[in-house]
Amino acid sequence: VTKVDAFPISGSVEPPTPYLVLDRDIMSANIDRMAARCRSLGIHLRPHVKTPKSIPVAHSLLEAGAIGFTVSTLNEAEYLFSAGFDDIFYAVPADASKLARAAPLLRAGHSLSLLTDSLEGAIQLGERARKERVTVPVWVEIDVDRYRTGIDVGSPDFEKLIRQIANGSGTTLRGLMSYAGASYGCKSPKETTTLTECHRNALLYAATQVEALGLPRPKLSLGSTPAIIHARTLEGIDEARCGIYVFQDLFQAGIGACQISDIALSVVATVISHSQTSNRFTIDAGALALSKDRSTQGHPFDAKFGLVCDAASGVPIRDLQVIAVSQELGLVSSAKGEPLNLSEFPIGSKVRILPNHADMTAAAYEKYHVLQHKKWDTTWARTNRW
Amino acid sequence: VTKVDAFPISGSVEPPTPYLVLDRDIMSANIDRMAARCRSLGIHLRPHVKTPKSIPVAHSLLEAGAIGFTVSTLNEAEYLFSAGFDDIFYAVPADASKLARAAPLLRAGHSLSLLTDSLEGAIQLGERARKERVTVPVWVEIDVDRYRTGIDVGSPDFEKLIRQIANGSGTTLRGLMSYAGASYGCKSPKETTTLTECHRNALLYAATQVEALGLPRPKLSLGSTPAIIHARTLEGIDEARCGIYVFQDLFQAGIGACQISDIALSVVATVISHSQTSNRFTIDAGALALSKDRSTQGHPFDAKFGLVCDAASGVPIRDLQVIAVSQELGLVSSAKGEPLNLSEFPIGSKVRILPNHADMTAAAYEKYHVLQHKKWDTTWARTNRW
Repeated sequence: VTKVDAFPISGSVEPPTPYLVLDRDIMSANIDRMAARCRSLGIHLRPHVKTPKSIPVAHSLLEAGAIGFTVSTLNEAEYLFSAGFDDIFYAVPADASKLARAAPLLRAGHSLSLLTDSLEGAIQLGERARKERVTVPVWVEIDVDRYRTGIDVGSPDFEKLIRQIANGSGTTLRGLMSYAGASYGCKSPKETTTLTECHRNALLYAATQVEALGLPRPKLSLGSTPAIIHARTLEGIDEARCGIYVFQDLFQAGIGACQISDIALSVVATVISHSQTSNRFTIDAGALALSKDRSTQGHPFDAKFGLVCDAASGVPIRDLQVIAVSQELGLVSSAKGEPLNLSEFPIGSKVRILPNHADMTAAAYEKYHVLQHKKWDTTWARTNRW
Repeated sequence: VTKVDAFPISGSVEPPTPYLVLDRDIMSANIDRMAARCRSLGIHLRPHVKTPKSIPVAHSLLEAGAIGFTVSTLNEAEYLFSAGFDDIFYAVPADASKLARAAPLLRAGHSLSLLTDSLEGAIQLGERARKERVTVPVWVEIDVDRYRTGIDVGSPDFEKLIRQIANGSGTTLRGLMSYAGASYGCKSPKETTTLTECHRNALLYAATQVEALGLPRPKLSLGSTPAIIHARTLEGIDEARCGIYVFQDLFQAGIGACQISDIALSVVATVISHSQTSNRFTIDAGALALSKDRSTQGHPFDAKFGLVCDAASGVPIRDLQVIAVSQELGLVSSAKGEPLNLSEFPIGSKVRILPNHADMTAAAYEKYHVLQHKKWDTTWARTNRW
């Protein structure tokens, strides 16, 4: 393991802990791996930037061949457009009020597409679009695994919805999409492979239904990092949507979508208290710095609120984890309950914490402190909120 | 129930959902109730602003008799000092690196006190303080309930620590404090009363130990909202520290520290998708807008990710709750599994969500949309991060 040149960050101003670290080498490897995976699957990649929400990361994704971007908020879309990016898909069902911000972007000539999954929503979108004097490219979400949103392909409403979007004024049909959210509950790669095949076939079936209405074949888009990683084939699907692969996290490691060494994101914290009696020490990173995401709770290895790593190398220290959090404090102990030698972790020393869920942890920060070749490189801004 | 004059907010710009609502009337009643409670207990109140992190709220607290403020980050301290507030206690154990920001505040003449719970930490604080040419007023945390940090009163290190702070240069002893964090796990008000009595007696015991060293009697400070609410007496204690009472939340309601109608904070969201098949609808407030706090999980009533209320009145709609969240989506259904009539919640309509944990939910936003007398009043900024 290569040590970083200085820890904490050397130079004029040491950032106060907690702060967010992004290992650019690990991130680049993650980006390259997914780009290669999509090339081998013969599918375009429209990465989801809800994870990084950062312009320099978007540049790296574009260099690796992204055909555009997926976003989870209109704030992300505005942020990317303002930096010169284009072809953005806002992949959350949009009610008509979202056109208050989306219409000016469309009128400015940006390529922005929205999502719907209901006839009621599509009619409202069309009405508002006409009022705003724009035509909105719309994707239709189909519900394959009951994970969250989408319309049933087999339902009578599906045909009505497609006709409404394609023939109603104010909207055009951009494509069909599904989100394999249930992949996060799959117990094995094989199960994920089957789920992904199910999504692919549902999309192919839906596409033929659209063609049977006399309409051109729509673009097909399929998402989730594990689905793309474990797909047997994505033949017939045009675009992959995924985002967490850029940073990875303990949840993704827990479901076999990456190794712990693939996690590019971590939080630096300072040791601020010891308790030999309770066999633990306390760091100044708690619920706000790490998030209260407990998504590894159901896994064979429950990471509690994060794995504790050597600050310099980023490598986990035995089985140390953040066992509990208050708003600004994290309690650290051994997962197996082994006795700690607290003199290893003096008051004022630093540790790094790997997150359960990178999206949630990164959202607490306005910037990344970037490591490249194990040296401090720069800081990258990110956008947050709505 | 009085309806608000317009919902969503009327006027030139409708804020995009999700946004944060603060009901100023409910908040004022909460502030007055706690101020009265502390007066009747004969104790000063040093409210914790880690919950609101907002200047106008701090003004309301001061008007209600606060003798100063407690903070969880140095960012909050800088924010309050810059607005003209003074006498601030940073109530998280401070390692010496915190003096990089605390020392300039002290040199500027602000009254800022820090916390320690170890001899090692106190020695380092003193060394750094001398280097920074400041004298730091220090509180010592005692550990009564093993909830997180603090030193054992009965331990030989306690006396050494007190001597170090009181006699070492760079530090002075401001007082002793304890945090009754275990009150959050109490099953009844009676249990909380006993726990609080235990904290009070531990502080009184520790104070006599300090006096036995020939030192002046230190100030005594005791915290947690439920502890102050359920205390039998706080005789001999100088200051109460608590913060969540200002906004309250579902967790506090679950442990009997408030009623649901006392919750001043909520999130406005838009209905964006329906699924009759899954008996639920989807809103555009998910894990980031509501937080992933699941602290009501162990309660007789598990609120999942929040209770769904009528947008105008803020009153819960039957047993509707946010049963699951993705990053930007919340799935709403009936807690008892009763069939929903989705036409009650048209696409584009608004709901309000009461949070499990106000601290965590508020931290996702930069401002409050303030309701007064059920009318839109203004927006209040808040600070975030570190």
